[in-house]
Parts: sequence; structure tokens; C-alpha cells
Amino acid sequence: MRTTIKDVARRTGMSVSTVSLALSDKKSRVSAVTKQRVRAAAKEMNYRPNLLASGLITRKTKILGLILPDIINDFFAKVAKGAGFAADPMGYNLMLFDTNGSPDKDEQAIYALLEHGTDGILLTNSVVGHSNRLSDCLKECEKESVPILLVDRLLDDFEAHCLVSDQELGGYMATRHLLEYGHKRIGCITGPVVDSATQKRLYGYHKALKEFNIPFDPSLIVEGDYSTDCGYELVKPLLMEDVTAIFAFSDLTAYGAYRYLFENGIDVPGTVSLIGYDDLEYSRFMGKPLTTVRQPAYDIGRGSVAKLIRMINDEPVEKITILEPELVIRASTAKIF
Amino acid sequence: MRTTIKDVARRTGMSVSTVSLALSDKKSRVSAVTKQRVRAAAKEMNYRPNLLASGLITRKTKILGLILPDIINDFFAKVAKGAGFAADPMGYNLMLFDTNGSPDKDEQAIYALLEHGTDGILLTNSVVGHSNRLSDCLKECEKESVPILLVDRLLDDFEAHCLVSDQELGGYMATRHLLEYGHKRIGCITGPVVDSATQKRLYGYHKALKEFNIPFDPSLIVEGDYSTDCGYELVKPLLMEDVTAIFAFSDLTAYGAYRYLFENGIDVPGTVSLIGYDDLEYSRFMGKPLTTVRQPAYDIGRGSVAKLIRMINDEPVEKITILEPELVIRASTAKIF
Repeated sequence: MRTTIKDVARRTGMSVSTVSLALSDKKSRVSAVTKQRVRAAAKEMNYRPNLLASGLITRKTKILGLILPDIINDFFAKVAKGAGFAADPMGYNLMLFDTNGSPDKDEQAIYALLEHGTDGILLTNSVVGHSNRLSDCLKECEKESVPILLVDRLLDDFEAHCLVSDQELGGYMATRHLLEYGHKRIGCITGPVVDSATQKRLYGYHKALKEFNIPFDPSLIVEGDYSTDCGYELVKPLLMEDVTAIFAFSDLTAYGAYRYLFENGIDVPGTVSLIGYDDLEYSRFMGKPLTTVRQPAYDIGRGSVAKLIRMINDEPVEKITILEPELVIRASTAKIF
Repeated sequence: MRTTIKDVARRTGMSVSTVSLALSDKKSRVSAVTKQRVRAAAKEMNYRPNLLASGLITRKTKILGLILPDIINDFFAKVAKGAGFAADPMGYNLMLFDTNGSPDKDEQAIYALLEHGTDGILLTNSVVGHSNRLSDCLKECEKESVPILLVDRLLDDFEAHCLVSDQELGGYMATRHLLEYGHKRIGCITGPVVDSATQKRLYGYHKALKEFNIPFDPSLIVEGDYSTDCGYELVKPLLMEDVTAIFAFSDLTAYGAYRYLFENGIDVPGTVSLIGYDDLEYSRFMGKPLTTVRQPAYDIGRGSVAKLIRMINDEPVEKITILEPELVIRASTAKIF
């Protein structure tokens, strides 16, 4: 059986409340000598606080929820790692939910976290199919004063705190890089068009084209879902449109496109330049290391936890935090002659 | 404020204990009609159980700890995903700790989990530098009747339940594949030799060599640390030894070796065959898709949670569970002429 605070009280001959005060870091009436005696006894007896019991009283559990669509996606793995490293020194622990991109699981995760008495929630909700029920969920969190921070996502129908990277800037950077290399027919394999990240990257694409006086051609835009498979399939219609460059809206999609091009003897970047989005761990190991837009994944994780803890402590925070992505130029893009 | 069981009792005019029984899935004296009435009211009032409160009484929190060295490593991300998917339908949630391979963090994570009243712990401890203190930690878990399962690791100095994949078989499979292709000088870039996985893969290497009557040459073994960087560096001394094939003890290490060979115009597999270990997500996208030994990562995650829950429920389990790896032959290995 584990040592309780009562056991420490019995051993030291003090009251439970004195022991409690002596073990706490707060200022109190307990003398330094008593503190030392209690703490020595607690240590000897292997006493550890019971967060369940203290959580019922303080209504703080030191649990942060982390709800992500796919922990295997290197981007989210880095967000999780950044989050863990920021939470640890602040005494918080992460409860992880991998929803596999299912909106139902988003909701189930939120309710599970409320049952666990979570102090706050970091949510990257699934991209597609989320209903009004998610907004209801978020209102429920508000009602119970559990702060929630949207990570790398915006919701149209609920005004929430969020931390995102600048998707429009990322789309602009990628397109401008290709335009500066002389490309005029730049195909895009996007994510789902209902996803705000895809919409914003497309704004950036438009903006860059406009700056270079290239008219927008809708036949150069094909809708994917950020997966590898869609990259492999959707590169075909773009090749029919005589593109000289392809902007894949995720590195995974770029991998699929690259594989198709490689298998069909189409040289990258000699014939077609290819740029991705994310800068996954493995992009630099490809046959032609991938030019891409690096999302600040660790910083998103770290920054989200820091902001959420401020919200938990009722400290002032900005509603929307925007981090900048970075263009990483490698060997898969080249100047056109 | 959240709705409590008392609020539901007040609304329905029943006692707290009747409401509690009506909401529980256990058989009880409460009639079907009452159950229905209470549940309708609870639903209308948005009542959710308070796991903190029930955890203090039942001593079950439905929290499972998951302690991993690196969530960015695709292998551990898959273990986590498999674990989450097995835990969810059983009503358990995962508390995640990414230790970054630090033995101190292993211990801190275990103590944090005990404070949270975890029902059980899945631990992949850091490979190197773990001290007797880890065994003390594990004994502490035993004392508090918190079951702990070692995942993908064995400890010499503590007899624990574990679930591992057959590392010796994996090492044997990789080596035999190269021997069958006619290779005789097969270099190994291992992990840390203190790591049991590296030791067992080396046994497998020995065993296969013996079967093919090839004498063991210690100059063909170089010690790495499973990283990409060590692959890049350690391929050089092996090339001085005229190897025709390299067995990298992780896919990451194979990526580093591949990059060095590629940069130096050494053809894979024409001049040197290369085999990895893990089958990370990206290995099939390499310029020459990587031949490798696939670890059953999802099954390790799923199986570990299933086994741990049996341990929590005091159901019989085998002490050691061993899953088999699988040889995946792709384009980075070839017959030697």
C-alpha cells in the first residue's frame, strides 16, 4: 500500500494539516525546522502526493489534453514532443489522443478529458467532417472553465484561442520560389479545400502569381488530401497540363508525386521541379532532397503549451498567435531555361 | 460549474446512491424504468462521471502510462498509435512521456504516473545509462500494485513482464538474406552494444554466418547508436574492409549510410547492398527503396495494452511475449556475381 499523508503525520506525531503545509511550497505558519523534519520523514517513507485527492480539492490535476489527428505524421509527432518538453518543467503531464482524423473521436477525447478533470486542452481537430457538435463540445469546455487552444487549425463557427503557423505566407513563399526560378505553369496538389490551411496556402499561391503577372489557371489546381497516394495519382492530370513545377501541399504528397515521376523516368528537377510543405524528417534523405516549406512544429508544440498554461492561470494572452514558416531550398527545384 | 451526481439526484428526487447505481453498468436492484429516468435526466443535464472522485474510491483512474524514448521515431509513434487504438475501446486513456532517451526522465515519468494514480505503465526505458535506480522504481510500482510492462526492452537486473519482438530472429533474417544473395563480407553498423536489441541482432548475425560456414570477422562490426549520423560516418571504415553488403541496425542508420554512398558515387545495390532494420514509413520512398526488417510496431503497441489490461485485471498472462519480425525485400539489396 502506498504511504499517505496520514502515515507521515502518525510517524512525526504532527497533525495532517501541519504535514500538508510543511510539504507544500506555499508560505505558511510552519517553521523551517518542522518543515525539514516532515520532509525528511516523507522522503524516508517514500511519500508522494496523491494528485487524485488534491485534484478534488484544488480542481487542478496537472493534466493537459493533447488531441491530434495522427501521431505517425512526423509533424504532429514533433508538436507532441515540443509540447511534452514545455509541459514537463512546468509540472504538467500530457494525456494523448490520436483521433486518426475522425471527428467523432475529437468529441470523445474532449469528453474523456473533462471526465479526467483536465486543466486544459490542446486540440488539432480533424480536417473534414466536423459538425456543429464540435462547437457544442467547445462551449461545454468554456462552461466548465477548461481552457482550450486550437493548434494549427482555425474553426469558422467558434471563436477560440489558437496558435497557427502562417499558411498564407507558406503558400506564397513556395510559389514565389518557383516563379523566381522562371516557372510559369505551376501545378498544385492541395489538401481538402474545406481545410483552412489549404485555403490559405492557395491565397498565398494567388498572391505570388499576381505579383509576377501570371494569370491564374484553375486547371492547374487538383484537390488531394495531403496523403502520399493522392500525390502519386494526381501528378498525372497535372503532367497533361504541361506543368514545369508542382507544389505539393504536404511532403507526403510530394513523396507520392516523386515516386510516380521516378518510375516514369521524368527527371526531378530537370523536367519537373517539385516542392513540398512541412519539412518532414525524411525529406532531406530523398534521392533528390526535397525543397519544402518548413513548419515550425516544435515551436508550435512548445508555444501552445506555454500559451495554454497562461490561459489556465488566467494570465493575459493574445487570441491568435501566428508563427512563421521557413523556405528550405534543396535539390528538387531548379531554374527553368 | 459542472453537473454532479447530487444535481441529478436533486432533479429526479432520488438518492445519490440510487442515481449512482442507475448510471452504472453493473447489475443492481434498480429497476429498468428508474434507470431510464435517471439516465435521461443525466443526459439532459450534461452529467459526466468525475473520474477523480471515483478514482479515489475504486483506486482505478483508467489512465495508462506510456513512456517512450522518442515519439518522433516512427517506430515509437506507431507503438503509441497501436496502444491508443487498443486502449480506447477498453475505456482507457494514455498519458504520454517522451523521455528523449534520458534515464532520469524514465524515473521522473514513473513517479509522476504513480502520483496520477495510473492503473498501469508501459515502459520503453532509455537504452543506455540506466542505473539501479530504475529497478528501485519498478519495485516501487510492484509495492503499490501498479503493473508495469516493458515494451521492446529487457532489463538484466529486474525480472519484469515484457513484450518484445524477436531481435535475434530479425538479425538472423537480415544476415541470411545477404548470404543467400552471395555476400560474404557483411559489415554491421550496430546500436550501442550495451543494448539488448543490438546484442540479440548480433547473435542472429553470428548464427546465420555459422550456417553458411563463413568465419566471423570482428573488423566488420562497428558500433553506432541507431542514428542517421552514425550511419553516415561509420560506413567509411566498413568500405576500407571491402564489404559488399552493410547491415544497418536501424533504418535511420541505413539512411545515413545511403546518403554517404550516394554522395560518393557508390552504387546501391550494384556495388554495395544495404539492409536496414525497423521499416520506417519512409523507407519505401528512398531512391532505392530500402530492404529492411519490419518490426511489428502497431502490434507491439496493441499487444502491450491488451497484456497490461489483463495484468491490471489480475488475469493470467505469460511473463514474456515475443512477436516475430518480417523481412521486407526491396531494391537496396542485390545478388553478388
